[in-house]
Amino acid sequence: MKVLGIDTSSEVATAALLAEEKLVGEYILNHRHTHLEKLVSMIDRLLSDSYTQLGELDAIAVAIGPGSFTGIRIGMACAQGLSHVHGIPLVGVNTLDALAHNLMHCGDFLCPAVDAQRGEVYACLYRWEGKELVRFWDYEVIKVEKLVKRLIDLNQNAVLLGDGAPLVHSSLPEDVKSAGKLVVAKRPFAMPRASSVAEVGLKDLKAGKTFNCFNIRPFYMRKSHAEEKWEERYGKGKSGKSNR
Amino acid sequence: MKVLGIDTSSEVATAALLAEEKLVGEYILNHRHTHLEKLVSMIDRLLSDSYTQLGELDAIAVAIGPGSFTGIRIGMACAQGLSHVHGIPLVGVNTLDALAHNLMHCGDFLCPAVDAQRGEVYACLYRWEGKELVRFWDYEVIKVEKLVKRLIDLNQNAVLLGDGAPLVHSSLPEDVKSAGKLVVAKRPFAMPRASSVAEVGLKDLKAGKTFNCFNIRPFYMRKSHAEEKWEERYGKGKSGKSNR
Repeated sequence: MKVLGIDTSSEVATAALLAEEKLVGEYILNHRHTHLEKLVSMIDRLLSDSYTQLGELDAIAVAIGPGSFTGIRIGMACAQGLSHVHGIPLVGVNTLDALAHNLMHCGDFLCPAVDAQRGEVYACLYRWEGKELVRFWDYEVIKVEKLVKRLIDLNQNAVLLGDGAPLVHSSLPEDVKSAGKLVVAKRPFAMPRASSVAEVGLKDLKAGKTFNCFNIRPFYMRKSHAEEKWEERYGKGKSGKSNR
Repeated sequence: MKVLGIDTSSEVATAALLAEEKLVGEYILNHRHTHLEKLVSMIDRLLSDSYTQLGELDAIAVAIGPGSFTGIRIGMACAQGLSHVHGIPLVGVNTLDALAHNLMHCGDFLCPAVDAQRGEVYACLYRWEGKELVRFWDYEVIKVEKLVKRLIDLNQNAVLLGDGAPLVHSSLPEDVKSAGKLVVAKRPFAMPRASSVAEVGLKDLKAGKTFNCFNIRPFYMRKSHAEEKWEERYGKGKSGKSNR
């Protein structure tokens, strides 16, 4: 089985090709928001460099959020396009679940935190128990201060991931920082990796949790700023709830 | 500071650009031995995709072995060429050290094992203690059975990495396998990553442990099959000891 993973839910554009026996290839680019310009050529190069045809893919796993509204749309639209032409099943992967897969083999609690602007992050709490990733909280949009309090109350070793991690860490009281129980993931693991998206995707594919290009949906968790503005001006319920 | 990492010591060709604050980009290709064909264009794309000039690099970190003799030569020769033209300092990174960096944040023992052919692996044992990677053994060329015995005697949770890991794991007695203390790293972490090479490189650069294109040396650990054949035919000491 071969799964193409895609994640453009943050500043990072990343694509990976995962087979049963190995990670065939992974390209990660964490430099400016140039997803629209870079993503398709990145996928094209990844597949041609590994002598793989689109038609050989068993699924495309794509990060559906939470994260950057525009970023998610670019990644999903690209995945939908490829799926439509070649009839490839899609898997929608939660960005926070994927981030937790960046630190497989880590015994500490994992707290992915994705910047949601306005002093909030999308966050969750996980731990690897053997081969299973256990999720302890609901996916949430949460004030940074509230998350900080919750992590202090947890009083366990935890690793922060995602583009919201520095924000959360810098909000910790000095004594908590210096105690060293709450740390930010090292550079190579801090941001989205398409190999992690593909890992979740392969699992979901085997469990039959697939979509097609018509019924896959983003996981936004809250309305975009543009939608809120629209509602402010024209009233609730007139903007359409999703996919704007 | 910006460090370019390169690793072609195995079947994987990989290049990464690491800055102080983030992993700027990483390209990994684990598909056939096409290093000579792919490496330079991979580096070229990585740098142009991240709008970085070669002259901006503070160092090039390159995997110097142990591993595939030809692979190491390709990676090092490429790094030497780039270093020579642009006067960029080089850092030589041990492949086993780099593999251990694939699992930062892991609390278990880490045992990178690189296939050395003829039933042997290049291997070592590490554990992360806070921010420090502690090395417990010398770098060794070791019979797989001897390594297996040593890991059983260790009697601790340990993760096997590298292309020799499946070889080692398949040689474990069934009861040890099923006890689950010795596992092979998950796909995304099992093979060389240039981001890990660059992480070691950045550390060494700061410590002043750099070379230039004339004095960097590979870390072969034993003679290549061709050298041994030469010595068999023409006698010892006539083949030259390194860089063949």
